[in-house]
Amino acid sequence: MTKLILVRHGQSQWNLENRFTGWVDVDLTKAGVAEAKKAGKLIAKEDIQFDAAFTSYQKRAIKTLWLALEGIDQMYLPVTKDWHLNERHYGDLTGLNKQETRDKHGDEQVHIWRRSFDVPPPQIDMEHEFHPSKEVKYQHIDPKELPTGESLKITTERVLPYYKNQIVPFLKAGSNLIISAHGNSLRALMKEIFDVADGDIPGFEFPTGNPLLIDLDSETLKPNSAKYLDKKRAKELPEIKG
Amino acid sequence: MTKLILVRHGQSQWNLENRFTGWVDVDLTKAGVAEAKKAGKLIAKEDIQFDAAFTSYQKRAIKTLWLALEGIDQMYLPVTKDWHLNERHYGDLTGLNKQETRDKHGDEQVHIWRRSFDVPPPQIDMEHEFHPSKEVKYQHIDPKELPTGESLKITTERVLPYYKNQIVPFLKAGSNLIISAHGNSLRALMKEIFDVADGDIPGFEFPTGNPLLIDLDSETLKPNSAKYLDKKRAKELPEIKG
Repeated sequence: MTKLILVRHGQSQWNLENRFTGWVDVDLTKAGVAEAKKAGKLIAKEDIQFDAAFTSYQKRAIKTLWLALEGIDQMYLPVTKDWHLNERHYGDLTGLNKQETRDKHGDEQVHIWRRSFDVPPPQIDMEHEFHPSKEVKYQHIDPKELPTGESLKITTERVLPYYKNQIVPFLKAGSNLIISAHGNSLRALMKEIFDVADGDIPGFEFPTGNPLLIDLDSETLKPNSAKYLDKKRAKELPEIKG
Repeated sequence: MTKLILVRHGQSQWNLENRFTGWVDVDLTKAGVAEAKKAGKLIAKEDIQFDAAFTSYQKRAIKTLWLALEGIDQMYLPVTKDWHLNERHYGDLTGLNKQETRDKHGDEQVHIWRRSFDVPPPQIDMEHEFHPSKEVKYQHIDPKELPTGESLKITTERVLPYYKNQIVPFLKAGSNLIISAHGNSLRALMKEIFDVADGDIPGFEFPTGNPLLIDLDSETLKPNSAKYLDKKRAKELPEIKG
């Protein structure tokens, strides 16, 4: 048995403005900082000694993790940051708000992009301002590996190999972990851990800054139980099979 | 040439109370948080792209680093935390303020402990409340390796092998680094980098939250130049030899 916490970053400025954020490195709002601090307090009540933490290359997830680690007084934990845990890359939708996207592409197409598993958004090229290679922190990565517009399926294909290679060995060893990440990189993990069908996973949503505590069997890597720690802001969880 | 920043944590609660802190995991004061944020702003003006950061297992140094990384918008940097960069362990003096120490041990003895290189404080044993093994985060370390009361010499003998094995390879590779640590673990690094004599090193003091920027020759690991970024709060630096 291991304890695994999945926490989506607190509210960001572009969550607030309802814009497709993806890989843009938007900061938390004041409300998002408060959510992250509350996440720390809620995790603290569970009285878990953690062994390590993982997060993305994006400040909204990193800061959420830092505030949570401060809340549980385990700031010394080793933290691994990796771009494979970043948010879904929204390609040419990046920066648009919902209304702008509807005006440009129509309601039906927007619904498909938001709710399908395998329909990617319009791609961007290397010259585009939102191509990851424009940011120093991605310049050590082969540009061909960097996303230019991902479906949830493509995000899953990026997140899960990282999970299996870098995170699962800790879980198999019985380590208690915190992963602070994003709506869609966490969906990928939820899909794997709860064995959710492709067509069902877009229907599940992580509330911001609300830690999901999973009691995980460290052999099968399947959940024995799972709960959101902020019950008032909980969302539906996939059925636990077994 | 590499850029190396050494920064002592901002003011802690026990700095304020003038107590021997050592390995007690005291938090920053509000003034200390402000110092750390200012350190971030000062480092940002230097326009350096860093490659990695190092800090101790102690929250006052970790939080100072986090605030500095936020200030330079490089929160994604890999951060290695290690207890070898912790503050000098003050043994049985831990927790005493200056006056209490003088009352208990006399002015002359206190002066010797503060200003000598190789006179350790009274040792504590495994049962003592301030023995590191009482804290979960040190429980994976062989208790025989953990300090029970260090002279500056003993601190240096703990910090420098870590520096040479774990940090120097980055510097030799030309990486720009930030190290956020403590008055005496930083003295150990200063002693090595500036080649300061045993008897002279206790005379140098790092101001809290004031980044020391060193332009380092990445072959010889000796400084070409060095300056505190907050000039108004700068302290004397060792002469650069060579």
